[in-house]
Amino acid sequence: MIINGKNYRTIWLADDKKSIEIIDQRFLPFEFVIEKINNVEEMAAAIKEMHLRGAPLIGAAAGYGIYLACINGKDKKDFDDYIINMAKLLESTRPTAINLKWGLNRMLNEIKKTKTIDEKIETALKTAIIIADEDVEINRNIGLNGVKLIENIAKNKNGKTVEILTHCNAGALATVDIGTATASIYEAFNRKIDIHVWVEETRPRNQGKLTAWELQQAQVPNTVICDNTGGHLMQTGKVDIVIVGTDRTTSNGDVANKIGTYQKALAAADNNIPFYVALPSPTIDWTLISGKQIPIEERTEDEVLYIEGYLNKKVENVRLFAEKTKALNYGFDVTPARLITGLITEKGICKPHELEKFFGKMSV
Amino acid sequence: MIINGKNYRTIWLADDKKSIEIIDQRFLPFEFVIEKINNVEEMAAAIKEMHLRGAPLIGAAAGYGIYLACINGKDKKDFDDYIINMAKLLESTRPTAINLKWGLNRMLNEIKKTKTIDEKIETALKTAIIIADEDVEINRNIGLNGVKLIENIAKNKNGKTVEILTHCNAGALATVDIGTATASIYEAFNRKIDIHVWVEETRPRNQGKLTAWELQQAQVPNTVICDNTGGHLMQTGKVDIVIVGTDRTTSNGDVANKIGTYQKALAAADNNIPFYVALPSPTIDWTLISGKQIPIEERTEDEVLYIEGYLNKKVENVRLFAEKTKALNYGFDVTPARLITGLITEKGICKPHELEKFFGKMSV
Repeated sequence: MIINGKNYRTIWLADDKKSIEIIDQRFLPFEFVIEKINNVEEMAAAIKEMHLRGAPLIGAAAGYGIYLACINGKDKKDFDDYIINMAKLLESTRPTAINLKWGLNRMLNEIKKTKTIDEKIETALKTAIIIADEDVEINRNIGLNGVKLIENIAKNKNGKTVEILTHCNAGALATVDIGTATASIYEAFNRKIDIHVWVEETRPRNQGKLTAWELQQAQVPNTVICDNTGGHLMQTGKVDIVIVGTDRTTSNGDVANKIGTYQKALAAADNNIPFYVALPSPTIDWTLISGKQIPIEERTEDEVLYIEGYLNKKVENVRLFAEKTKALNYGFDVTPARLITGLITEKGICKPHELEKFFGKMSV
Repeated sequence: MIINGKNYRTIWLADDKKSIEIIDQRFLPFEFVIEKINNVEEMAAAIKEMHLRGAPLIGAAAGYGIYLACINGKDKKDFDDYIINMAKLLESTRPTAINLKWGLNRMLNEIKKTKTIDEKIETALKTAIIIADEDVEINRNIGLNGVKLIENIAKNKNGKTVEILTHCNAGALATVDIGTATASIYEAFNRKIDIHVWVEETRPRNQGKLTAWELQQAQVPNTVICDNTGGHLMQTGKVDIVIVGTDRTTSNGDVANKIGTYQKALAAADNNIPFYVALPSPTIDWTLISGKQIPIEERTEDEVLYIEGYLNKKVENVRLFAEKTKALNYGFDVTPARLITGLITEKGICKPHELEKFFGKMSV
């Protein structure tokens, strides 16, 4: 993605080859900070405390985290146990996004095939880089598939602006690059289709500020709305298509995504607006047959009761409620397959209930 | 309502009889400020800039505003024209809540019946006080009617906590006292029914902070959630009933209420959860036959892009988005009658489509 005119990924191997660098998203869009991650514990903390976030990016971070663990543990007698323990540490950071588990399993499986510790380190790095590169490639293909939907709407609107609504940040910042929900948006923009994006704020963590910022960096026209406003825009004919990401999709096509997605799907269904989920295949959990089985992360109430904003050129954490007010903070909700028009995958677009058939037994 | 152990209304005649005092809600729940309103222009500004808000309270404020106009204009030659102009000024402050228009019409009609300016001033004060007193009485009756719903749920749950969800602040602070959506809640609490209230934050202006604060002052158990979370709680069986207020209800039973209400009604319908609107009759607009005719207030984007929070014992306005981010800010949305289980009025509970029949021709 282009940031201040320069090309970036969200995560990469540092020049010293022994550490990882990431865009520290806690300070965006106010400050652009690059953080150096020196060991696996720091990577676990970065995931847990959301220096980076987004299911696909978490998957890539898990890969690089295991590479760091291999370096950190190279002089340990119980190297294999150490790596497994560090994988458990990484897995414990975020319960809902399945990409974390997927990335860790893939890393452990590849490492298992090698013998010496040097080979393991080399394989870990190679695999982590492959996971990251594949994410970019997957997203590019999601974009090529999804853009057809936008092209069709543009045709039917006779050149009038295509209005796309998205929730949370399933953008380049939620992946290694390009994004999932944004992939079709960027591709449409590149093809000079007249588009405009409604960016939902996405309380409590306001990931909409990331989406608005990255779209702005890419010069894609966009407007932020509160999460309460999406339904009203749909009711009044101001939305042509909804595209969101997913943190875990079960084999029946149910989608766990950022809290509030379900309400958006309800509003889309009530107004006959197509509701699509951009779904990279590593986000599919073939072991679960229903969204009801997905563990929903509960986070600290302080994310609701306080908010980060910019004041006098400083990021400040201000209190929003009275002192003794209590809050409850779930990170995700489940959108049932019946409310989803289609899944935009790297292989093509399918109906949610056709997911298993579409991917075949290969991936199961 | 009880605030710090003392009984308050949200608006009252000051001791000098020439000015009005209000709770200035801009600083709640961080600071409890009483503002003196000295003339009709100050009242118009207080309504527009939301020192006070909530449809029923705006109706009462319109009444007192006209009383202030009568005092301000008493030495003017064109007294009657002045009063009509000031009524227009007051009416222009908020387009959606019908109570404003209702209160102004009632004031002008009563004043018209009198002859001398002294009589007009006296009548204006008397009528403004009647409007305020009636609001409290209406809300008390809404509570007595609505509490039956909560009592029934409590019976069916065999004493388990009744979980009530509300959006925005349709509480004592949105009225002269007691509140509309909260009326049944306070009555249930007084009857020692085990209740708990999910208070939706209600972006962009976070009126949930007012609801949480006033419930806390009254010792009613409550928990704040983001607007995104209501649907998830309903999906997972954590909500027994939704009760919200209304800013304008059309004769077909469509309800304009704070933006986001529609999404809540969709989620309630999708999960077979009763969705009730607390409706004082002055909030009914008999001249409109459909919610589509209701003008929806668009407010400044800054209410989305900035937020007020408490930092170092000061209320600060912090920026939430990147510098060039644009936002769109609608104040209300329309919940169609088909999604509403019932309307809790001061006369009893009716189905939305029965509204006209229920109130009879008397009020039309």
